[in-house]
Amino acid sequence: MFNKEVYENRRKALISKMCAAAAEGQRGLAIFIGNVDAPAQYKDNCYKFRQDSTWLYFWGLDNPGYAAIIDLDNGVEIIYADDIEIGDIIWMGPQPSVSSLAASVGVDRSAPSDAFGKAVSEAIAHGRRIHFVPASRYYNVLKLRELGLDDKKPSVDLIKAIISLRLIKEPCEIAQLDDACNLGYEMHTVARNNVRIGILEQEIVGKMDGMTLGKGWGVSFPTILSQHGETLHNHLHDKIVEPGKLMVIDAGCENNMHYPSDHTRTLPTSGKFTSKQRDIYQIVCDCNNYAFSQTRPGVAYRDVHIKTMRMMLERLSALDIVRGDIDSMVEIGIAGLFQPHGLGHAIGLDVHDMEDYGENFVGYDEDQTRSSQLGLGSLRMARRLVPGNVISDEPGIYFIPALIELWKKEGTDKGFVNYAKLEEYYDFGGIRLEDDVLVTSDGARRLGDQRLPIEPDEVEEAMKR
Amino acid sequence: MFNKEVYENRRKALISKMCAAAAEGQRGLAIFIGNVDAPAQYKDNCYKFRQDSTWLYFWGLDNPGYAAIIDLDNGVEIIYADDIEIGDIIWMGPQPSVSSLAASVGVDRSAPSDAFGKAVSEAIAHGRRIHFVPASRYYNVLKLRELGLDDKKPSVDLIKAIISLRLIKEPCEIAQLDDACNLGYEMHTVARNNVRIGILEQEIVGKMDGMTLGKGWGVSFPTILSQHGETLHNHLHDKIVEPGKLMVIDAGCENNMHYPSDHTRTLPTSGKFTSKQRDIYQIVCDCNNYAFSQTRPGVAYRDVHIKTMRMMLERLSALDIVRGDIDSMVEIGIAGLFQPHGLGHAIGLDVHDMEDYGENFVGYDEDQTRSSQLGLGSLRMARRLVPGNVISDEPGIYFIPALIELWKKEGTDKGFVNYAKLEEYYDFGGIRLEDDVLVTSDGARRLGDQRLPIEPDEVEEAMKR
Repeated sequence: MFNKEVYENRRKALISKMCAAAAEGQRGLAIFIGNVDAPAQYKDNCYKFRQDSTWLYFWGLDNPGYAAIIDLDNGVEIIYADDIEIGDIIWMGPQPSVSSLAASVGVDRSAPSDAFGKAVSEAIAHGRRIHFVPASRYYNVLKLRELGLDDKKPSVDLIKAIISLRLIKEPCEIAQLDDACNLGYEMHTVARNNVRIGILEQEIVGKMDGMTLGKGWGVSFPTILSQHGETLHNHLHDKIVEPGKLMVIDAGCENNMHYPSDHTRTLPTSGKFTSKQRDIYQIVCDCNNYAFSQTRPGVAYRDVHIKTMRMMLERLSALDIVRGDIDSMVEIGIAGLFQPHGLGHAIGLDVHDMEDYGENFVGYDEDQTRSSQLGLGSLRMARRLVPGNVISDEPGIYFIPALIELWKKEGTDKGFVNYAKLEEYYDFGGIRLEDDVLVTSDGARRLGDQRLPIEPDEVEEAMKR
Repeated sequence: MFNKEVYENRRKALISKMCAAAAEGQRGLAIFIGNVDAPAQYKDNCYKFRQDSTWLYFWGLDNPGYAAIIDLDNGVEIIYADDIEIGDIIWMGPQPSVSSLAASVGVDRSAPSDAFGKAVSEAIAHGRRIHFVPASRYYNVLKLRELGLDDKKPSVDLIKAIISLRLIKEPCEIAQLDDACNLGYEMHTVARNNVRIGILEQEIVGKMDGMTLGKGWGVSFPTILSQHGETLHNHLHDKIVEPGKLMVIDAGCENNMHYPSDHTRTLPTSGKFTSKQRDIYQIVCDCNNYAFSQTRPGVAYRDVHIKTMRMMLERLSALDIVRGDIDSMVEIGIAGLFQPHGLGHAIGLDVHDMEDYGENFVGYDEDQTRSSQLGLGSLRMARRLVPGNVISDEPGIYFIPALIELWKKEGTDKGFVNYAKLEEYYDFGGIRLEDDVLVTSDGARRLGDQRLPIEPDEVEEAMKR
């Protein structure tokens, strides 16, 4: 945990924002429901506990079954949880009291769990507003319904206030993100050192994920490791590593403070790229570097996405994969055929930060409208950047036969795509290269002490054993 | 997956049992809700998918978002799920159709997901019975409520029918359990080879859990690895390994077919037991072997528990930790102070098999009543054993200061406990030794090819590096 002042200051800032949004006496309660253990099988066999990120941000305590209320009309903060009993001591050992844990994050009032529901019911009976965030877990949906609240109607005021705080990382958070990215560097090094023709993909994943459990909380999202990179989120690892393939590894480590890394590298399974692979790889690599060079305060990341896609199309044009006027291609979104996802997303306590609060609230300024184009429409972070933003920079090129056939059939490309040439790439797979970037006062820096090898020569050198 | 005949036969057996429980036309529907992905953070960042065990048992398909209905009045079986669309193909790659997956487990009818709710609603409207099992996951609670069913009122007929089938393992399941126990052997070997003074417990756990992910689905339950074995379910691994401690490691691997292992070993962190440690360790080791020797068809495991506790008390009496008449001590349950848990539980697709269906339904014959004594009251498997049962054999001795003080204060021990002697053990910790046992036609055998080192000399030898 951070010092208690960190949490006190965040709650003060939140209260201040919420108070600005409504008159005194009209503000109501902001309620926070921490996570409970999530059953993997039966109720007592659970997945590794992961606390809710907003809970961690404001209340710090990494224990299941906690809740809290801030009374926005008088500033009173109360944490709700139950102290353990003798039966629990046998199973769980002696535990600090709820009140001492509350005090450790600067909260001087605590109460048993059942008082939480009573306090909310009473406030509802008095016609007070109840502010809550969207429920990500099914437990929270149930809990909100049991409290008599409509889980489909979270508080937009609270969502916006939280997003405005969490999007700008404090120095103590940046230190954690650097730490997580150092673990991510190690995780990808483990991956690279274990790619060997003939072994099962799952064995590499086991070594990577084991490392994250040994040094951090675990993976920050399910590891993607695939010789079919054209399948963007492939979570199966049941293939044997074959020679001559490209292996996309999109994987991150969550450290013990729950800050994540999120890096993607694409490795030639044989240790050397073919020249065809290298041509495409170099485009993606250059797009990654170009996007980073464009990242600084005041620039809209939407524009960085679009400029990067322009560069990608120019380079694909040089390979005769697309043909014609680049401006027109950018305009109608031809790049989406090759990169059907956005350039990046915000990163914080959630690896896609606050995704369930609404991607547009998180990633779009109020005057920005989300595109409906394939690719640009999936861009999660479009905002004008400010110092303290942390984002991913992850261009990719994929050759997805089903998607190419669909565009061809429906004429989506308006004649800009050279389908005859594209056929040569049906078995190519895909490439993605991703770094994690902090927006600084005058530019940007990549998080972590060292950058993972990314230039094709560097990658081939690193794979020599 | 197993051959489709395995699933067809299981469903046939289930239908036959359910038909015996009610007259034709009165039987209604048995509904099965497979698991969905469980969010760890936001909805698209989920824990590794774990299918529901009863779903796996009858329907085999290891995919999220599936449901099924058996119409018990006409034997019709339908699997419900949605085929993927082009947008999903980009993210997930081409996938087999629902109808082809259904056919692979012997089901010739399938329908889209929304037809499931309609079929259930229609049956309810016609006053037909809807049989369902208890919901373990919050999603299933929500789903049952949305279907208009009371999640608190599962079908006892269906529960009993499923338990009667799943408690007796088929040869194909025994092969899987042997395989899982071989992985469990490897997991504990990794643990033993990595215990080193000065390292963080978490590092050992990372290596163990990484191995399970590399060769199987992952851990069959959260790994317990603790130098405070007296805390029975300690999931924190934040301590440095210290010399002279006892480390309890209760951990298992789930293989890719979702069959688990569940072994406990207790290691001296320095590689050698002190003589005080060895005295207690030998008692637990002998209790484990004795319990195994008593395990065979026709014997109630409750009696094996009680006889093993008698042996434990005799041996503790020889150390002057308890004093007096052994029969009386057994009668009033003095062993519960040292082993406040049961001797074992059923093992199957769930590592505590079907625990959420009701421990008494799973573990007690109809004429057996559960004890209220500490220890015996926690016994999960009391039944008269039959060939095909798979159970754990896990005696333990723990010195739990909070519990000892409570017994002393309340006189629970009726004078049989020598508290003066016990004080010498307040910093001892605990010991548990657990194997997985199959009841055979004429006795029992431990699952897996090799038994993990268990005799104190064997353990010390194995720890020499």
